[in-house]
Amino acid sequence: MHPIDPIRIVLVGTQHPGNIGSAARAMKTMGLSRLVLVAPKRFPDPEAVTLSAGAEDILQQAQVVATLDEALTGCHFALGTTARDRNVALPEFSPSQAATDLVARSVQGDVALLFGRERTGLENDELQRCHGRVFIPCNPDYASLNLAAAVQVLSYEIRLKRLASGALQPKPVEGDEQAPASMDQMERLFSHLGEFMDEVDFHKGRSPEKVTQRLRRLFLRAGMDEREIKIVRGLLADTQRLLRQLK
Amino acid sequence: MHPIDPIRIVLVGTQHPGNIGSAARAMKTMGLSRLVLVAPKRFPDPEAVTLSAGAEDILQQAQVVATLDEALTGCHFALGTTARDRNVALPEFSPSQAATDLVARSVQGDVALLFGRERTGLENDELQRCHGRVFIPCNPDYASLNLAAAVQVLSYEIRLKRLASGALQPKPVEGDEQAPASMDQMERLFSHLGEFMDEVDFHKGRSPEKVTQRLRRLFLRAGMDEREIKIVRGLLADTQRLLRQLK
Repeated sequence: MHPIDPIRIVLVGTQHPGNIGSAARAMKTMGLSRLVLVAPKRFPDPEAVTLSAGAEDILQQAQVVATLDEALTGCHFALGTTARDRNVALPEFSPSQAATDLVARSVQGDVALLFGRERTGLENDELQRCHGRVFIPCNPDYASLNLAAAVQVLSYEIRLKRLASGALQPKPVEGDEQAPASMDQMERLFSHLGEFMDEVDFHKGRSPEKVTQRLRRLFLRAGMDEREIKIVRGLLADTQRLLRQLK
Repeated sequence: MHPIDPIRIVLVGTQHPGNIGSAARAMKTMGLSRLVLVAPKRFPDPEAVTLSAGAEDILQQAQVVATLDEALTGCHFALGTTARDRNVALPEFSPSQAATDLVARSVQGDVALLFGRERTGLENDELQRCHGRVFIPCNPDYASLNLAAAVQVLSYEIRLKRLASGALQPKPVEGDEQAPASMDQMERLFSHLGEFMDEVDFHKGRSPEKVTQRLRRLFLRAGMDEREIKIVRGLLADTQRLLRQLK
């Protein structure tokens, strides 16, 4: 058995099983093995097997989940691929930077790279779950990079970075540092923060979206560890307790 | 009309017209347009059109020739892609080096990048026509990179080098950039946070130092902008106001 790769390739809402097969093939050519499928339209499917052309092991081990939350459980870093013109307020990574970050951070635990639906990509709330966006610098007049081609380019960049870092074998986690917060711990922090803001009526009837988005981005960017989450949530909880006593 | 690209993508002896279509698509996504086909088995062919997915213009302008000699006429530099284990006495280029050379030399005249047959690649005498060989650093246990995937990776590298050399003008990325917070704004945030923690009795008699230090580190690491400071301080102030009303 191979050790489980800490880099997850997450395909969200893929419509055509053939694309899943081609993506698996692209991954395998670059030495990636961990595929997670969020609500694929048809899977398993013989077309996926045909197009995987020998990367069937990746399809067999693929994890199929219903929600992005499940796909990201246990990850502490995630990047989402988008088209260039997509207007989202997220830090932008080139494929090379994305690969550098994914490889470096995968030493500390699981990381994820997300690919959206064939026609429509990732939805905004899906992108908001990510620490950043990646786009492949396509021809602006013809950005028709298909799913497997995008997986190919990014897997290739990841392979280059792994070869360069000598980290083809992911190294074990070092002991003394604090564990980075997982994505689900981050989500619980954000829910808590949302609840807190409602409780102090921070939005005062305005749409909470923008502010929530900005706070998400701030805390995701910071790369929090577990102890920091504990402090911030502790502060929120203590304040809530006090407010409730006083009310 | 576009000017003719000095970089030729030369497919030698391609068996499946679908691969020609997919290769054209891969080229076009990366802004390449000049395709030369040496003795393709079936071309033109509806399957090529189908798989080109909108890159039909590249197929229509493709030059079909009988021999590699014709394909290379007028070129002053050529590289041939090979599998890793291919034993040929030619200088080796990584995809990135290959792209750097092709882009640099294309300023002086036409250059070519050759891709061989699906199963067998380029023949030795074909490779001998080249100035060097390129191989994509695939997974040695599964080097099943298909033709279009190889074209995709190399076209992507060529695009990166063209973008970097300013041969294309990449468009500036939109941001909703804010001024980064100044050091004194950060300090005011930390004082405010300290005051807030006292007000909700967060420390409960313990020394506030450690927690304060950790929160400082967290927010400094995040590299906050002015708007984010405003949001966090706004949240603190609103909560304080509410607490004071209730007390």
